[in-house]
Amino acid sequence: MRQSLISFASLPVAFGAISPRNFIYIIPDGLSPASITVARTYEALTTGGGSPEQPLVDPMFIDQLPVGNVRTHSADNLVTDSAAAGTALATGFKTDNYMIGVDPDGAPVGTVLEAAKMKGMKTGLVVTSVINHATPAAFSAHTLDRNGYPIIAAQQVGYSHPLGQNVDVLMGGGACYFKPSSDANSCREDDIDLIDHARTLGYHITEDREGFNALEAGLDDIKLPILGLYNNNTHLAYEIDRQQQPEETREPSLTEMVEVALKALSQSTACKGRKCRSTPGYFIMIEASRIDHALHANDPVAHLHDVLEYDRLLEHVKQWIDEHPDTAMLSVADHETGGLTLPDGWDPRPLSGASHSAECMQAQLDDYEGEDLSGFIADQLPSYGLGEANETTISSLAASEDFDFDLVNAMNAETGLHFSTGGHTAVDVILHAYARGKMGDDLRRDLVGNHDNIEIPRFIEKYLRLDIDEVTKQLREDVSWLE
Amino acid sequence: MRQSLISFASLPVAFGAISPRNFIYIIPDGLSPASITVARTYEALTTGGGSPEQPLVDPMFIDQLPVGNVRTHSADNLVTDSAAAGTALATGFKTDNYMIGVDPDGAPVGTVLEAAKMKGMKTGLVVTSVINHATPAAFSAHTLDRNGYPIIAAQQVGYSHPLGQNVDVLMGGGACYFKPSSDANSCREDDIDLIDHARTLGYHITEDREGFNALEAGLDDIKLPILGLYNNNTHLAYEIDRQQQPEETREPSLTEMVEVALKALSQSTACKGRKCRSTPGYFIMIEASRIDHALHANDPVAHLHDVLEYDRLLEHVKQWIDEHPDTAMLSVADHETGGLTLPDGWDPRPLSGASHSAECMQAQLDDYEGEDLSGFIADQLPSYGLGEANETTISSLAASEDFDFDLVNAMNAETGLHFSTGGHTAVDVILHAYARGKMGDDLRRDLVGNHDNIEIPRFIEKYLRLDIDEVTKQLREDVSWLE
Repeated sequence: MRQSLISFASLPVAFGAISPRNFIYIIPDGLSPASITVARTYEALTTGGGSPEQPLVDPMFIDQLPVGNVRTHSADNLVTDSAAAGTALATGFKTDNYMIGVDPDGAPVGTVLEAAKMKGMKTGLVVTSVINHATPAAFSAHTLDRNGYPIIAAQQVGYSHPLGQNVDVLMGGGACYFKPSSDANSCREDDIDLIDHARTLGYHITEDREGFNALEAGLDDIKLPILGLYNNNTHLAYEIDRQQQPEETREPSLTEMVEVALKALSQSTACKGRKCRSTPGYFIMIEASRIDHALHANDPVAHLHDVLEYDRLLEHVKQWIDEHPDTAMLSVADHETGGLTLPDGWDPRPLSGASHSAECMQAQLDDYEGEDLSGFIADQLPSYGLGEANETTISSLAASEDFDFDLVNAMNAETGLHFSTGGHTAVDVILHAYARGKMGDDLRRDLVGNHDNIEIPRFIEKYLRLDIDEVTKQLREDVSWLE
Repeated sequence: MRQSLISFASLPVAFGAISPRNFIYIIPDGLSPASITVARTYEALTTGGGSPEQPLVDPMFIDQLPVGNVRTHSADNLVTDSAAAGTALATGFKTDNYMIGVDPDGAPVGTVLEAAKMKGMKTGLVVTSVINHATPAAFSAHTLDRNGYPIIAAQQVGYSHPLGQNVDVLMGGGACYFKPSSDANSCREDDIDLIDHARTLGYHITEDREGFNALEAGLDDIKLPILGLYNNNTHLAYEIDRQQQPEETREPSLTEMVEVALKALSQSTACKGRKCRSTPGYFIMIEASRIDHALHANDPVAHLHDVLEYDRLLEHVKQWIDEHPDTAMLSVADHETGGLTLPDGWDPRPLSGASHSAECMQAQLDDYEGEDLSGFIADQLPSYGLGEANETTISSLAASEDFDFDLVNAMNAETGLHFSTGGHTAVDVILHAYARGKMGDDLRRDLVGNHDNIEIPRFIEKYLRLDIDEVTKQLREDVSWLE
């Protein structure tokens, strides 16, 4: 195999006197450079008083943070998938698409999260996908195939991870992967009960809004570790659909989950005075997972609102850092999804009428059992911002064999957004970073420029004085656990 | 009109003790974020030993330079044209598409080049388009319509510019706009002889390779101003076509022209010792103009080689700055063109067979007078890298009513490059910058982040201690000259 461990000496990192005690690593999965232009312009034209003929476009929050960009190809493809990209961003090694936490030969490689844990830090993973999806998996598991969801879940709660329990806060969807096949809500084919295992390890476990609220309210008394799985069968809802859920059962938003996770991690690593410099802090990876899904679906509605939520998340994290200045953050997409471009004539304003994703619209259609399909669709279209669709569009959608695809294309025709693919693309992604004061100056100076994705975890490793290679060594002592 | 003059106080510029004496402002017209990925991957896969199955992608030169990104919309459109974008980048004012060096009400606004001249600096414009095209025009002329080429040319050599002769080095194409209608090679409808006017002002004038070589060789004795127009009727050739020109009549490359321009500007502003701090230096705007044209044409061949030349230019400029450390540079596209994306499966290797642009291929076809069109096309296709085209492709091209468009699409089908438009798009463009040592640190610190395009000339204004507003004031004293 090609030597893919990069030389530390080649990194342009100039470490100042002050390095962060805590690190917040954010991955907006699939975020396109054009995503930010869409969200920024949407805000300007719907709430900022601008128009396409006289744009008055204010910066988004995220516009305070760019420092460079990042190359994304994987070890075996010019266009990476989220498994190889997640592995690169977590471990500093390129690997083949579909692989999780292993090199192209299938040998395990340590992650920045595992290295943080090994150093005595507290760790967290907060995502809007199933918690065992490729990106969070790449920080907390090692397996040859990203589709081994039951294997990944078992490693994430330390049931079958060779180094034991590594993740102190796990939040996302996919509770079913943690339940034995005997449970009616299981997605496993074996009888491993990971919820029970987690309970044995002392995890505080919640699975719904009521549990989340209790967790939030009781944080002073609740100790790590925490396992919060707020959707049983699949990912958390797209942000726009989440906002329509009944308040009492509404899934927590990404920002809500992060707020709780940061408080819990911060509390459990609290320190005072000089002792702080030697008290291990925390490392958290946060994924705005569903931006990628929305772009795969070419759904401009779901995309917009998950990007806006991501921007709110960044603002929250920035405020958190301003109040906890021993903390740094960076945010970088793992790749671009959808091939999104904004040709002359595009206009995001039609998106303002929508209150549901195309995925949700499709589900409503699937549930419809009546006989007036056209009438039903005509009634539903305003929910997707297409209230003014004409008869041709309605009858074409009624006859469609791929309703959600034709639906998003109807909206893309309205707005002029153009998607070139339902997959990923190779364009560089944007790197964003923030820390307060002198530490922020150092961080920007270190990160400014263009980087290969494998350089990013090495920056964090250096900042936090971790040793990823020691994790790799320990993982490789006996690889009989690897599957 | 909306106040579009930005507040200086809001700029995050922290000026160090050392500020540059000279500034090199580079505009790769239309450069897409994806352009760099294409060129970088092409190099890796054709000369670097990589393959799509095992990419070994080294950084391009430009990858040393990114510091942030830039928003591009114009005063009247979400998608800017080059006139409004050039005006924003030159003056610090948003204006309407098609307008040059005026605000949306049509009142002239001063440019950073004019302000440099007013301060006593030497100035230059070096481009690969006609010299009076929108971008160079926006730095050196004021007119309500970018298509007023004769008006723009007359201002550029000081014939009708209210402040007189402003540009000390002019290099590009479009000599015909400087010749009176009585000249067989003229594009003017009047009898104004701008070549003669320039000669009166003392311009050293060259119009061909021989003249360029003599200029290059005689630089020690040749004084500013210099006017070099190396194509009479139109733009300079695409880089790939230029490389095929006979050596003795070959147009100079962008890098060759810049090399001469920098030497001439540097010589004429030379200083020694302490006096240097108060001796005015130079300002030059360099446009890699034809990247935009290649993207408008969706021509991946022309695009690639003009991007590679742009990268060589940046490397040359960096070396120049390393040898002349009182100089800073920044580079930023005015907008993205073409909506270029690189979906899964793309592969730049087919481009390696091409030696001509689609524009050149079309011209060859237009010249063909024989009767075996299919045979002619089959013979020509290898020059565009399509030597293995099958009979269906050949006969379809022979029957085409839009040959060059169908030709680029045939190559785009081979490579998997995807263009969403023949026009411009709204995505943010990447900002690159370089200066040596401490000045470089300051520059990166000042420029890191996301900016509106109107902020960029204000940065340069501050660095060089110019006064754009004073230029605006003088331009407006009497606007009877404006047309």
